[in-house]
Amino acid sequence: MSSALPPRVRIVEVGPRDGLQNSPSRLTTDVKIAFVDALSEAGLTDVEVTSFVRPDRVPQLADASEVMGGITRNPGVRHWALVPNAKGLAGAIESGVTNVAVFTAATDGFNRANVNASVEESLARLKPVIRDAKDAGLRVRGYVSTVFGCPYDGEVEPVAGARVSRTLMDAGADEISLGDTIGVAAPGDVDAVLDAHESMGVSRDAIGLHLHDTRGTALANVYAGLQRGIAVFDSSAGGLGGCPFAPGATGNLATEDLVYFLGRLGIECDVSLAKVAEASGAVGAEIGRPLPSRARAAWEASTR
Amino acid sequence: MSSALPPRVRIVEVGPRDGLQNSPSRLTTDVKIAFVDALSEAGLTDVEVTSFVRPDRVPQLADASEVMGGITRNPGVRHWALVPNAKGLAGAIESGVTNVAVFTAATDGFNRANVNASVEESLARLKPVIRDAKDAGLRVRGYVSTVFGCPYDGEVEPVAGARVSRTLMDAGADEISLGDTIGVAAPGDVDAVLDAHESMGVSRDAIGLHLHDTRGTALANVYAGLQRGIAVFDSSAGGLGGCPFAPGATGNLATEDLVYFLGRLGIECDVSLAKVAEASGAVGAEIGRPLPSRARAAWEASTR
Repeated sequence: MSSALPPRVRIVEVGPRDGLQNSPSRLTTDVKIAFVDALSEAGLTDVEVTSFVRPDRVPQLADASEVMGGITRNPGVRHWALVPNAKGLAGAIESGVTNVAVFTAATDGFNRANVNASVEESLARLKPVIRDAKDAGLRVRGYVSTVFGCPYDGEVEPVAGARVSRTLMDAGADEISLGDTIGVAAPGDVDAVLDAHESMGVSRDAIGLHLHDTRGTALANVYAGLQRGIAVFDSSAGGLGGCPFAPGATGNLATEDLVYFLGRLGIECDVSLAKVAEASGAVGAEIGRPLPSRARAAWEASTR
Repeated sequence: MSSALPPRVRIVEVGPRDGLQNSPSRLTTDVKIAFVDALSEAGLTDVEVTSFVRPDRVPQLADASEVMGGITRNPGVRHWALVPNAKGLAGAIESGVTNVAVFTAATDGFNRANVNASVEESLARLKPVIRDAKDAGLRVRGYVSTVFGCPYDGEVEPVAGARVSRTLMDAGADEISLGDTIGVAAPGDVDAVLDAHESMGVSRDAIGLHLHDTRGTALANVYAGLQRGIAVFDSSAGGLGGCPFAPGATGNLATEDLVYFLGRLGIECDVSLAKVAEASGAVGAEIGRPLPSRARAAWEASTR
């Protein structure tokens, strides 16, 4: 009954950006740099470091340039930065960023709340940013939020996300990350969304899944994705973060849970669960809140 | 790619027994009765009420007879009681129990720690209990713990659990529940264990899965089970409990998470998530500890 699963998965670690963006605590630049470096040393090949957004909107990430300048560059690690617009892209390039992510959503409601624009308007704004990034020789990732459900618009047709992905790919994006922003998806939704992408001609190899564990379904959705040949998954060390613009949206899939799961399935990712757990533990201690990762808690119990 | 999933699932709610058995708090008999009744009213067709074990071993459940005598009987609900031996069975029958569960493990290490007997010795002790229960006209469920991994013996061969299941079925058990006692399984393990049961001629229709969410993998394993046609799953309201004999074993799959997941997959179970969440919330308030269920937390956030 089991389909052939991909032999290897690439994890995109989003904790330093997506995780800390939500944190009520302000971490020092040194703590952030140490976090990113610890994650790189844990074996993660892709680490989203920060976001070049307006400091008045996301003060937690106001030190984006300093963090980018302070981390240890490693040829085996792609360090990513989020850029909302041309100004953010310029700041990222100035800071030596070579991998940038742009973001939009599948729904107008979420986009209006988040970037004060409809989906169409947001895509129109992003196209020149993607083109400029490609012209500058950067790798570009396109995040599509609310693909599986929207806190404002409710249920979302699978084709809505696929249309946005298609547009981003046509604009030059190298890869797409499909977000279950409010953590409502089950495997049937993953199948439907991937079907829609297939119909729109978006290559499976360009697709990553960005799942939230808000209702405990994240790894089931990872499994559904694996069964469809998806081999890129986003996760956050310790399960840090969520999305500040979505009411009640908590619970990024934890990197520790994903690493455990892949290992037990015999799928390679070359990431050390213990090292990720140590890295998230150090940041969790700074934030002063328990980390939601379940595999991390089991690991911690095993070390006592 | 998606296999045909069962159109309907039966949930066996184990919170009042498996959940409370571990609680450091002693709940009053009235609170327990109200919990069981609230779960029945939530639509659960199978509720494990208590255990007729030695009160000195599990003092939390010393009021088994009083609880069984106090709950509201409902022809649509099977109320279950755990019985370890002939004495427990006699107590259960005296209290009007008509559905009993016996328990053993797939591994000697766990059985020795739990019931001071090897697997073979434990099965030899259970056979007459099952026979007597069947002679008394009861329905019998056989729990097999540590099928996917053992806190004492480590990795467990899939055939080990299948042999125990085969023996319990041959002894007269009506159904089997396969436990991932320490929450280590991933879908590949579910496939392997179900393959082994198929090889041993244990009918898929007799098998339920009792999954723990210790590492966040429970719903992924439910999905793997569904893809194999398994239509019975155990869960615990709020995610209460685990196993008192397994070090570090926490995290029963939460009923709320399972109900959400099945609903989103379009699989019927006729259980109200809100009513389960209200029931677990009332007990959680008594225990004074946060409930681990993620879907419950999302539900709670949605009600604010």
